[in-house]
Amino acid sequence: MNYPEGVSPQDFNSALEAFRRIVGDDKLFTEEGDVALYRDAYSPKWGEPEELVASAAVAPTTVEQVQAIVKAANRFKVPLYAISTGKNLGYGGSAPNMTGSVIVDLKLMNKVLEVDDKRNFCIVEPGVSYFDLYTYIQERGLNVMMDVPDPGWGSPLGNALDHGVGYTWGNYRDHFGSHCGMEVVLPNGELLRTGMAAVPGAETWGENKYGFGAYVDGLFAQSNFGIVTKMGFWMMPQPEHFLSCMVKVPKYRDLIPLIDTVNYLEDQGLIGHPRYSCPMDALCMMWEPEVYKPTPELMKLNNQPGGASVAEYEDYAARQGLEYWNVTLNFYGPKKTVYANWEYAQDKFAGIKGVKFEELESYGLPMNKATAEKLRHKVAVGIPNMSIFSIGARSEAVPDPGDGHAWFAPILPRSGEAFIKGHEVFCQAAKQLNLTGAPIAPTNVPQTWQYRTYIYLFPFFISRSNKEVNKQAYEQFIQLVKIGADQGWTEYRTAPLFQDLVASTYSFNDNALLRFQNQLKDAVDPNGIIAPGRGGIWPKRYREGV
Amino acid sequence: MNYPEGVSPQDFNSALEAFRRIVGDDKLFTEEGDVALYRDAYSPKWGEPEELVASAAVAPTTVEQVQAIVKAANRFKVPLYAISTGKNLGYGGSAPNMTGSVIVDLKLMNKVLEVDDKRNFCIVEPGVSYFDLYTYIQERGLNVMMDVPDPGWGSPLGNALDHGVGYTWGNYRDHFGSHCGMEVVLPNGELLRTGMAAVPGAETWGENKYGFGAYVDGLFAQSNFGIVTKMGFWMMPQPEHFLSCMVKVPKYRDLIPLIDTVNYLEDQGLIGHPRYSCPMDALCMMWEPEVYKPTPELMKLNNQPGGASVAEYEDYAARQGLEYWNVTLNFYGPKKTVYANWEYAQDKFAGIKGVKFEELESYGLPMNKATAEKLRHKVAVGIPNMSIFSIGARSEAVPDPGDGHAWFAPILPRSGEAFIKGHEVFCQAAKQLNLTGAPIAPTNVPQTWQYRTYIYLFPFFISRSNKEVNKQAYEQFIQLVKIGADQGWTEYRTAPLFQDLVASTYSFNDNALLRFQNQLKDAVDPNGIIAPGRGGIWPKRYREGV
Repeated sequence: MNYPEGVSPQDFNSALEAFRRIVGDDKLFTEEGDVALYRDAYSPKWGEPEELVASAAVAPTTVEQVQAIVKAANRFKVPLYAISTGKNLGYGGSAPNMTGSVIVDLKLMNKVLEVDDKRNFCIVEPGVSYFDLYTYIQERGLNVMMDVPDPGWGSPLGNALDHGVGYTWGNYRDHFGSHCGMEVVLPNGELLRTGMAAVPGAETWGENKYGFGAYVDGLFAQSNFGIVTKMGFWMMPQPEHFLSCMVKVPKYRDLIPLIDTVNYLEDQGLIGHPRYSCPMDALCMMWEPEVYKPTPELMKLNNQPGGASVAEYEDYAARQGLEYWNVTLNFYGPKKTVYANWEYAQDKFAGIKGVKFEELESYGLPMNKATAEKLRHKVAVGIPNMSIFSIGARSEAVPDPGDGHAWFAPILPRSGEAFIKGHEVFCQAAKQLNLTGAPIAPTNVPQTWQYRTYIYLFPFFISRSNKEVNKQAYEQFIQLVKIGADQGWTEYRTAPLFQDLVASTYSFNDNALLRFQNQLKDAVDPNGIIAPGRGGIWPKRYREGV
Repeated sequence: MNYPEGVSPQDFNSALEAFRRIVGDDKLFTEEGDVALYRDAYSPKWGEPEELVASAAVAPTTVEQVQAIVKAANRFKVPLYAISTGKNLGYGGSAPNMTGSVIVDLKLMNKVLEVDDKRNFCIVEPGVSYFDLYTYIQERGLNVMMDVPDPGWGSPLGNALDHGVGYTWGNYRDHFGSHCGMEVVLPNGELLRTGMAAVPGAETWGENKYGFGAYVDGLFAQSNFGIVTKMGFWMMPQPEHFLSCMVKVPKYRDLIPLIDTVNYLEDQGLIGHPRYSCPMDALCMMWEPEVYKPTPELMKLNNQPGGASVAEYEDYAARQGLEYWNVTLNFYGPKKTVYANWEYAQDKFAGIKGVKFEELESYGLPMNKATAEKLRHKVAVGIPNMSIFSIGARSEAVPDPGDGHAWFAPILPRSGEAFIKGHEVFCQAAKQLNLTGAPIAPTNVPQTWQYRTYIYLFPFFISRSNKEVNKQAYEQFIQLVKIGADQGWTEYRTAPLFQDLVASTYSFNDNALLRFQNQLKDAVDPNGIIAPGRGGIWPKRYREGV
């Protein structure tokens, strides 16, 4: 048993007994085999003493049970770590920030409370998965489109609370940004509702975010100020047509005008998620092995730390008849509108020498199952799926994709110039660190899930059997975070192992932001029982050993 | 001199001396005539002992001065009340929540720090007005469109911090929702930056909202957790065409399908701000006196408490050849797209019997000044102006528009059914209260400035000379807030005089939200010096008389 720091075995066992009385014997998990299910399968510390592991898990079925659990945890000062469906792979999975925490597993609280397809919102519990919500919508023939991440077994609520992202239109992709109203169990066990949910009899929970006065919702995401038990989301009504097209440009520096024009189109709402690819990029080859194929020559270019030079990639692309960059533009709306937008877009890109255009997919919505099966990216029309898990094994682009990965995900300015500088910095770093375990090259593409923000994303591959691989990945990850932060580029999201490090890069004025967050934390959670360490925020008790 | 409660004259004067040393003699205002400029010109308590008035004002020119002022205020426990340009008319103007507060007037901090028209954001100081920002953009020929409220002398930063709203496309209208990153002087005088602004060297202040960990920005709006000194905003790139069209429907209950279709169009991003009007509505006649004209017969219908019956208005409209409702749809984008969208919209509304369509305006952007002068609503293309102030005087629709007004602004569900219920409830209330001073009738239209939210808005007219009028308005306002709240409809924004009342309507679980906000407030502002009472949040010192 991994007792949490600062909690005596007696107190811990008393807490477990209290939890057992609250949820019943069958919903408290203390057996090693059961608790192991909450380990982070992708942890770079897998099997090491530093691996962050839970002590037990408790699975409430009602809000009242969550409240009672929190109150009992306060009595015995036992740290809790709440998960929704617990599928946050690559960012920590279900495992806590602090070893010995008791997992509060909310997946049994799985009711879709409301979906309104005239006012276009939904209200869900934490255990509702994207599959659940999709099924609910399909069964009732509701005219709304979900925004889903890869893969579909996650929870809309849980994903939003880790600032997760999706694939459709505008700010629907920003899952926290499209949330509207919460119910939260506070660290003292009290029940809070925010926005219009705080108004008895209001029917506007899913419509108005702010309500009145200080807007507190942001405190409950990537953080530890409470356990969210219900959450509303704005939804997009289902458009009538989906058109997916590709713009291809031949040269490396074409990225600059390409991005400028994509920004212009997207910020006007003419396109949805712009998906950049480079046919020579290892990650693109992993994600779309049917489309982007490695050759022995390309593998040789890629399999050196930091990849090959821009000139070599440009030369390779020219000889293979490949573009250097492409971007898939997804249009949603009436059929005439989406074609007018595509025509307009082509006109705007026409100034890039050698640009090529291709219509990829054009479908009326809703589409039938057979059509949906043919889609290049089901997520682009809000269909949850698990196809992301088939890619690693099939790809030849990466010599050893490992057994899992940790995502390196710093935020860069949304311009070609900035991204080119990103290539320079990270490729040089890869060479200096002799970094072969992560695909870094001047072929890396901007990731655009977040509305109006770029992520320079690549995975560090993790092994379940080779501790040396993991040790190296862990250390290199830390180096890369620091190298990025020196440029002002730092992570929007990371696994618990790296959260203190990442939080420390938001360092303006001697870490004023973190100190302010800690001050708030101490006020609302004096016993420090809710997810100590989440988002870099530690309660006084663990911060100062009180 | 109106000393603040709980502050001795000695301490108060010491604080003023400290402020004087910080900003210089010419930027501290203590003369009655100077301080009177910060009175709320629209206060229903004008000239009464309960009028909320400042004691003095101080006008810093730098962030360091703001920090020094806050530190001095802590030493002497003097409450401060920060304003940007101070133009929040109808919602309290420049006057504080607590009599005796010292105004921190930020209008001298008026630098536009950055406008990027490739990545589409701006960063501004509090004293920058919409006019200032517009001029900056025009002088440099930058290709971005602002979202502006009526009138244009307000501050983008200040407006966003009161959850203010505008007139263009999608969530750009939600000024707080489109903000991105802040700099804040905390109640202890420390400087905080949020989001990417917290990362030294980051160039993404205006691009990524959340940064990492707990997102604290919401605490600084409609509230009192700090003084915001810089703020970023996402901007819309200027589209190439603006098309404004009108849909007219003949019958009262046509509001239901009208709204359903507008929601469908807007939530897909096909239209910008949908502006509902009723040709017989007093507020619509005030706002557009050139378009909607009163007749003696109509005035007779309107000038009874709660207005006339639906049948009488339907009969009047039919005889006059008027529609009952109309909605102006504004389309932004490439010319072909906006016309495709308008064609599509007409098709979607075609099922409403007797529907009529009209193209109002169609202009390429940017437009020249002569064209801009002809525009029906300059705000629809982001041109700040002051024309809103010309309306009251010219309108014959309201017997006595008074010298000012307090806006009644509860949030209703975004459906025709809900709005019709709103008519029933408020018209009945107007009859019961014999309420003649505010235009309430089944002709009131949904206000749609907030993205995805309706406001049932009407003004209570205020007099500068007749205290009886004000007394009645004040009491009726309170009654109306309570009547709305009984239905779950309550304000998104209100003047300081009514903020405690409105906050109390967000009452779920014994006002858990307000108690949580107070708990946070006490942690970060133990001396209770920042805007006591703002958003209903009082520091412990004034809450409990400590």
